[in-house]
Amino acid sequence: MSNDFRSASLNQLAFHDEFIGRHLGPDAQQTVEMLQTLGLKSIKELIDQTVPDGIRLKSELNLDAAVTEAEALAYLREVASKNQIFKTYIGMGYHDTHVPLVVLRNVLENPGWYTAYTPYQPEIAQGRLEALLNYQQMIIDLTGMEMANASMLDEGTAAAEAMAMCKRQNKKSKSDVFFVDADTHPQTIAVIQTRAEHFGFDVVVAATDEVTQGDYFGALLSYPGSSGQIRDLTSLIDAAHKQNTLVTVASDLMALMLLKSPGSMGADVVVGTNQRFGVPMGFGGPHAGFFAFRDDYKRSAPGRIIGVSIDARGKQALRMAMQTREQHIRREKANSNICTSQVLLAVMSVFYAIYHGPEGLKRIANRIHRLTAIAANALNTNSFKTNSAFFDTLSVNVGNQQSSIYQAALNAKINLRLIGSDSLGISINETTTEVDIVELLAVFGIKNVDIQTADQKLAQNNSAISKDLLRSDAVLTHPVFNTYHSETEMLRYLKRLESRDIALNNAMIPLGSCTMKLNATAEMIPVTWQEFGKLHPFAPIDQAKGYQQLFNELQEMLKACTGYDAISLQPNAGSQGEYAGLVAIKKYFESKGETQRDICLIPASAHGTNPASAQMVSFKVVVTACDSKGNVDLDDLREKIATYGNQIACIMVTYPSTHGVFEEGITELCEMIHAVGGQVYIDGANMNALVGVAAPGKFGGDVSHLNLHKTFCIPHGGGGPGMGPIGVGKHLAPFLASHPVQNVPGTQINNGTISAAPWGSASILPISWMYIKMMGAVGMRQATEFAMLNANYVAKKLESAYPILYKGTHGFVAHECLLDLRPLKEASGISEEDIAKRLMDFGFHAPTMSFPVAGTLMIEPTESESKIELDKFINAMLIIRQEIEDVIQNKITAEASPLHNAPHTQDDVLDENWNRAYSREVAGRPANWLKNHKVWPTVNRIDNVYGDRNLVCSCPPLDAYME
Amino acid sequence: MSNDFRSASLNQLAFHDEFIGRHLGPDAQQTVEMLQTLGLKSIKELIDQTVPDGIRLKSELNLDAAVTEAEALAYLREVASKNQIFKTYIGMGYHDTHVPLVVLRNVLENPGWYTAYTPYQPEIAQGRLEALLNYQQMIIDLTGMEMANASMLDEGTAAAEAMAMCKRQNKKSKSDVFFVDADTHPQTIAVIQTRAEHFGFDVVVAATDEVTQGDYFGALLSYPGSSGQIRDLTSLIDAAHKQNTLVTVASDLMALMLLKSPGSMGADVVVGTNQRFGVPMGFGGPHAGFFAFRDDYKRSAPGRIIGVSIDARGKQALRMAMQTREQHIRREKANSNICTSQVLLAVMSVFYAIYHGPEGLKRIANRIHRLTAIAANALNTNSFKTNSAFFDTLSVNVGNQQSSIYQAALNAKINLRLIGSDSLGISINETTTEVDIVELLAVFGIKNVDIQTADQKLAQNNSAISKDLLRSDAVLTHPVFNTYHSETEMLRYLKRLESRDIALNNAMIPLGSCTMKLNATAEMIPVTWQEFGKLHPFAPIDQAKGYQQLFNELQEMLKACTGYDAISLQPNAGSQGEYAGLVAIKKYFESKGETQRDICLIPASAHGTNPASAQMVSFKVVVTACDSKGNVDLDDLREKIATYGNQIACIMVTYPSTHGVFEEGITELCEMIHAVGGQVYIDGANMNALVGVAAPGKFGGDVSHLNLHKTFCIPHGGGGPGMGPIGVGKHLAPFLASHPVQNVPGTQINNGTISAAPWGSASILPISWMYIKMMGAVGMRQATEFAMLNANYVAKKLESAYPILYKGTHGFVAHECLLDLRPLKEASGISEEDIAKRLMDFGFHAPTMSFPVAGTLMIEPTESESKIELDKFINAMLIIRQEIEDVIQNKITAEASPLHNAPHTQDDVLDENWNRAYSREVAGRPANWLKNHKVWPTVNRIDNVYGDRNLVCSCPPLDAYME
Repeated sequence: MSNDFRSASLNQLAFHDEFIGRHLGPDAQQTVEMLQTLGLKSIKELIDQTVPDGIRLKSELNLDAAVTEAEALAYLREVASKNQIFKTYIGMGYHDTHVPLVVLRNVLENPGWYTAYTPYQPEIAQGRLEALLNYQQMIIDLTGMEMANASMLDEGTAAAEAMAMCKRQNKKSKSDVFFVDADTHPQTIAVIQTRAEHFGFDVVVAATDEVTQGDYFGALLSYPGSSGQIRDLTSLIDAAHKQNTLVTVASDLMALMLLKSPGSMGADVVVGTNQRFGVPMGFGGPHAGFFAFRDDYKRSAPGRIIGVSIDARGKQALRMAMQTREQHIRREKANSNICTSQVLLAVMSVFYAIYHGPEGLKRIANRIHRLTAIAANALNTNSFKTNSAFFDTLSVNVGNQQSSIYQAALNAKINLRLIGSDSLGISINETTTEVDIVELLAVFGIKNVDIQTADQKLAQNNSAISKDLLRSDAVLTHPVFNTYHSETEMLRYLKRLESRDIALNNAMIPLGSCTMKLNATAEMIPVTWQEFGKLHPFAPIDQAKGYQQLFNELQEMLKACTGYDAISLQPNAGSQGEYAGLVAIKKYFESKGETQRDICLIPASAHGTNPASAQMVSFKVVVTACDSKGNVDLDDLREKIATYGNQIACIMVTYPSTHGVFEEGITELCEMIHAVGGQVYIDGANMNALVGVAAPGKFGGDVSHLNLHKTFCIPHGGGGPGMGPIGVGKHLAPFLASHPVQNVPGTQINNGTISAAPWGSASILPISWMYIKMMGAVGMRQATEFAMLNANYVAKKLESAYPILYKGTHGFVAHECLLDLRPLKEASGISEEDIAKRLMDFGFHAPTMSFPVAGTLMIEPTESESKIELDKFINAMLIIRQEIEDVIQNKITAEASPLHNAPHTQDDVLDENWNRAYSREVAGRPANWLKNHKVWPTVNRIDNVYGDRNLVCSCPPLDAYME
Repeated sequence: MSNDFRSASLNQLAFHDEFIGRHLGPDAQQTVEMLQTLGLKSIKELIDQTVPDGIRLKSELNLDAAVTEAEALAYLREVASKNQIFKTYIGMGYHDTHVPLVVLRNVLENPGWYTAYTPYQPEIAQGRLEALLNYQQMIIDLTGMEMANASMLDEGTAAAEAMAMCKRQNKKSKSDVFFVDADTHPQTIAVIQTRAEHFGFDVVVAATDEVTQGDYFGALLSYPGSSGQIRDLTSLIDAAHKQNTLVTVASDLMALMLLKSPGSMGADVVVGTNQRFGVPMGFGGPHAGFFAFRDDYKRSAPGRIIGVSIDARGKQALRMAMQTREQHIRREKANSNICTSQVLLAVMSVFYAIYHGPEGLKRIANRIHRLTAIAANALNTNSFKTNSAFFDTLSVNVGNQQSSIYQAALNAKINLRLIGSDSLGISINETTTEVDIVELLAVFGIKNVDIQTADQKLAQNNSAISKDLLRSDAVLTHPVFNTYHSETEMLRYLKRLESRDIALNNAMIPLGSCTMKLNATAEMIPVTWQEFGKLHPFAPIDQAKGYQQLFNELQEMLKACTGYDAISLQPNAGSQGEYAGLVAIKKYFESKGETQRDICLIPASAHGTNPASAQMVSFKVVVTACDSKGNVDLDDLREKIATYGNQIACIMVTYPSTHGVFEEGITELCEMIHAVGGQVYIDGANMNALVGVAAPGKFGGDVSHLNLHKTFCIPHGGGGPGMGPIGVGKHLAPFLASHPVQNVPGTQINNGTISAAPWGSASILPISWMYIKMMGAVGMRQATEFAMLNANYVAKKLESAYPILYKGTHGFVAHECLLDLRPLKEASGISEEDIAKRLMDFGFHAPTMSFPVAGTLMIEPTESESKIELDKFINAMLIIRQEIEDVIQNKITAEASPLHNAPHTQDDVLDENWNRAYSREVAGRPANWLKNHKVWPTVNRIDNVYGDRNLVCSCPPLDAYME
């Protein structure tokens, strides 16, 4: 811009699209330089040579023009203000909570935590791993079980996973029937029923006692019940076991601070949610489901487990236990497709427990219970009848006053739960005050209750929890729960953990297939607005007008981006999206009477989740071959189609392929499947190479899931939350997931329920909304284009050092590239893992390792990385290449090389007995820029085998923590 | 708490005082252990043995009981909602701005930045120092001057400092008269007039041209003028110089993106505010004043200057240039008492500039100007008359329509500036939109303006800035302003800088006299609420009802804490509080006709600021002696009183003393002064040892300033903002600071004005309000008690290794302790600086060095540190003591010892040519707990002498930044 502003127009000065330049890494000058490197004149030329013309969009996306951060936030503020926050006593697994502010600001609002990736590279993730180990310890303590995983998506899916695990584990039972306690939250029942339907199990929902009245491979009992009633399950579980029924207990963490544990009553699995431990309700999510189980089951646990191992120096080190993820072990036979956990929310909940400590939590639980008991006393002495034994939840029989009291409550901005035709539910939570109880009782016509008097009366005579249901064992005795109770100590603990990890605020995380792009502050800010955080998912829908508008607008945006006709926002992870998509396909064929279609074709290059998802809807997986260029072998596909014909339900294909290439044959592939009446599932994992350039709903897809945590900027949170809505064609729209409590517009209840909450992780949807709003039609396309520019730039600069395994027709890759390390490995003995670990010495997180091809690295830089950062990474890779060359040239042995010993820690370089064949400087600061900023891995290379052989998934004893 | 909740009462369970336990470091168990160490049974016993009975408060403070974080925030939300946010075009140095969200979240809301201390220990502050150096470069570039300091408090005080500097520098002029351009912001004029009155200067306020019509030692011209008018000052400045008048120019950073620089027009000093560069208006503050000047003046610059030097390895390293602070050099002759700068706000503004870059800033400035020109055209073609030459501000002559248009604007929620009786002022800012202009013109009766048409017309013919006033030099050309324009790059730059510094989120900062206590998240959260951030300080007061309530309640709280009768919130730093207190005393005596009282007695142990403040009100400083125990020598004082009698204006005394002792003689001292009609100024620096235990307003003080950034939890921000309200007795209340624009209730305009904004840094006052609210009467007392417990525990544990220089009658210290290092230094040659630097190797920030006694360390742990952290620090100090012993025992020479070589960096421990007499482990991780968490100093010990001899205060050239 020249100094003479006279010639500019206000339009040029307005700069509504400023955010695009904030989101994209390369600036104008860098873009020119990168195009020069690629021998291209323009980005358009790159796209022309890369994306098949047949699938190219001919016009811009049907989205508004970009707006600024301030404009988008002002608009969304208006939307949010349409949500109304009532005092909500609905309960049903969701309770208001006080997020500890030190956790809110330093974890949930801190990019050091929320931009981190899943801890696949444990040496630079010891902070999160310690937090997750603490989380597992908390769950183990409170449930009284031997093991716990690092969290599930919600109670509903955790319960469904528990059912599947009971089936896997129960070798004694021949039954295909699962029993569910009728006093269970309805959304949990619905998710179980849907999951069972597609596995081919039957579900019996009946009164708790009836668990012993049938032949069941497993059962789920609720403790407390959804009604609030509590009872000792010991003898029931014992009786069930005798009939070869494995028992899962759905429970409540806060209740377990007072009540004796399900483990002590004999439970085999315990599930529930962590939400009320300091995670906002968020109109349903995200929060974490918990999952605890017997030690015997550990090799078939769903999700992820953090385990204790040792590093190369023998020092204690944590990592994800590798051999415990169902679909890795049993693959096509897996009956779980869960990939991620809800790391950010799991760690928030354990930080809540650490900050309060066992005494603080017990005080909170006691207070909740006491307020409940005061309310119960008042109700019962005023002609109402409540359940007799409870922790925090009352079912109040109000006879024919149900609707009048319910309405009186609404008038007082109070939400109660409707139960049957004559009862109302009340669940008390941590935020409930004495004044709230007075106001609550007033809507029942009970006026002027003196809480203090009622309290004193109760102090002598409170029988709501019988003595033998009281917990007597000490919980959370580990020092970590008894040290950080001042804010200063807590803040420093959080900081120490954070500083051990590499997140996007440190450096590029070029993870192929995972799209670690910018999670802009403007996108994150609305997530912690109270108007989004404090809504109960089952609040009367007219209190959620802001959310409804957000959903509608986001659905329109996603339709524009994908070319589909309808969007379901319910699936709260990519895996759940796949599942929801296959369920819709299956329901569609059922509606047409084509129930014979049960074949799911999957190319050999697919994500491992695809076959697991197919298995979960009882589809048979048939693998189709890839050719030498990595493309789907259309001839082989043609043969398979000829063989299976009208048995084919669908094909699941990732586009552009997991090999990072736009396959030219995609249109033909879709046509071939459609020709035999099958459906095309296009895995949306690589949508970041499509938006604005080609739309799966337009070039042949019938359904796709969208990883909002990849393409649409929801941060990875260190390993969750994810969010996996699906887009479908018009014919599949009638078969999208419904919800048993809160009506999802346009769905029918027998479509089934995928997640516990009607719109999944609603409170993080503003992130994707903000992103699309601020980028606009042009920006969304540019994001895709720059993702491809960046990937091709990296491929070009590295190809002389490392062969690029797959390229498109014109020699370009899509938005990621696969480096083939196998020849180098053969020549040098240096493995892809050595390279990955050596990258840590440079401050980088490794690219995806050995997926989809063993012996490769898959690099996806995303559009948000600048040329400066890409050049740093390229520089690191070229230095590493020279180090490999030194091995090949026998200048150093593989074992002696810095590659083999990587990553290097402070323990290494401070060691007086340094006897390496290279210097400390080469070890720790192998590139110049590291003198300016260096993040040290805190442990040496971790011994996974040791950890798996000696699986320890709880906190090590005190002395391991001694400072 | 037992498991049997039946016996507890709800009151016990409610825990409204939960926050107290978050704020205090030691828990119950730790407290018992610490008392045991001290041989005490209770904290009460400690207080009884420490605080003189005669001054002890006999009842709890007159404050409410503690409330929880949630309760306090809910209440404050209500208060905040009483503030109304209008579109505000008042200007006068305050403009709405978009805080870049990446800076908002990662700097202003990040404890890594806001809890840091002033960078006195540069080796662990290179991040902030680089940011401040960038800030100086930005000011140098935009003003066109040779040097800039690291910021002042606001434009008013910067202008007043400029006046004082002109006086110091101007050796040619004998004049005592300072000229002020009448077209200057009224608050700037008021601060200058007040300052001049007490220095004994005359001030002439007249039209710009008249600067050449008198004999002035200095002049301040405004460019743009407060009216918005711009003119070339070159010839006026030239003429002024010929008459031996030095010229200060008050300017505007945004205007300077387009206008030629004051430096290029010959200015000697340039001042202004950085507020509109991404710092919220906050009803007046905090923001930073800027101060740029000729290279010749650098040795007499007020405030702080960051300079470039080298470290012990010859590597470039930054630090505060030590020899440039007025009161350090001229001491009692100083005519500046400024201590702190506004670091947090200064760095925010330079990050704003870095993020936008020169092109972005120019675009913003152009757009502001264009919108202003469109408005001006519309007004001038519709019978109104505006100034002809302007950047962003119009004075609109509206004849007799002034009040009707002003009122119409208010009705449309628009604030205009009232000028005289027939004009209105309009200042356009970065957030102004085209729609805003349409709405603005509508209140002038100009309807349906088509902005696009107006814009096109203007594109051919915009003469508001004449060509020769346009800037032609390139600014912000340094790479730092041209690299970090994507959010990802910016985020990482911020992170890299942050990670070089040690702040309270890393470790204790036991700075004696500076009270580095917890800055709780709950206290910080309201600071960034829009209701507090988006208010213009001169908005009609009925739009600020929330602020008024906050001020009133905070004043009541501070009265309760201090025992005074009235509080002035205007002074925006401790130094300004001292000044304001002395001004009140002076005015008081004037009102009584006792103008002969011009002696200020100051004990030898006083803060250096005290004599400088006295000098600034033309009081003569008489130093009174201390006895061997460090107490004020009452005999000497008696003699001084006898000598000076009714010439005595006041005594300035710190209590408890800067020696960390409650002097028993304080009551007698006060009585002696009062007996001769003098006033007692009790410096509030050590209020953290008094609140709830003794009240200066009760035991003899007539006035005190309160460092809200010490005792009352406002964070230090890495070296500012501070906040220094004063409390006074009833007789002084009529003499508190007033304001020329916004009426401060209970003040008279001729009391004078201390700061640019009527209530100083209003937007950070919620921090102190929250603190007192959440602690309540009991918590505030406990904070004091635990501060003393912690200090005594440290003293006890260290006294066998390091003698404690001063103790009270019963052998206890107050809230801090002085370690006497002189004997060790004599025996070993190890200096206090060696120890301070060695502490960095342990991850600690050093205590206060050589204040108030050379050769000592003053340790103030504060109440927020736990015993765990104290024990770590003690451990470090004892290891250091052993290292000194090794030198004394000749096991190692001082030069060879790790103390001498400290701090140790990665450059050291990675060096292959390690030839030290100790291991790398001893160098870098001298204590066990450092294996768990280690923060490395990024440079070795800095050579201050080199830096002062080669003073460079702008960014080094590109190659020094090469990565």
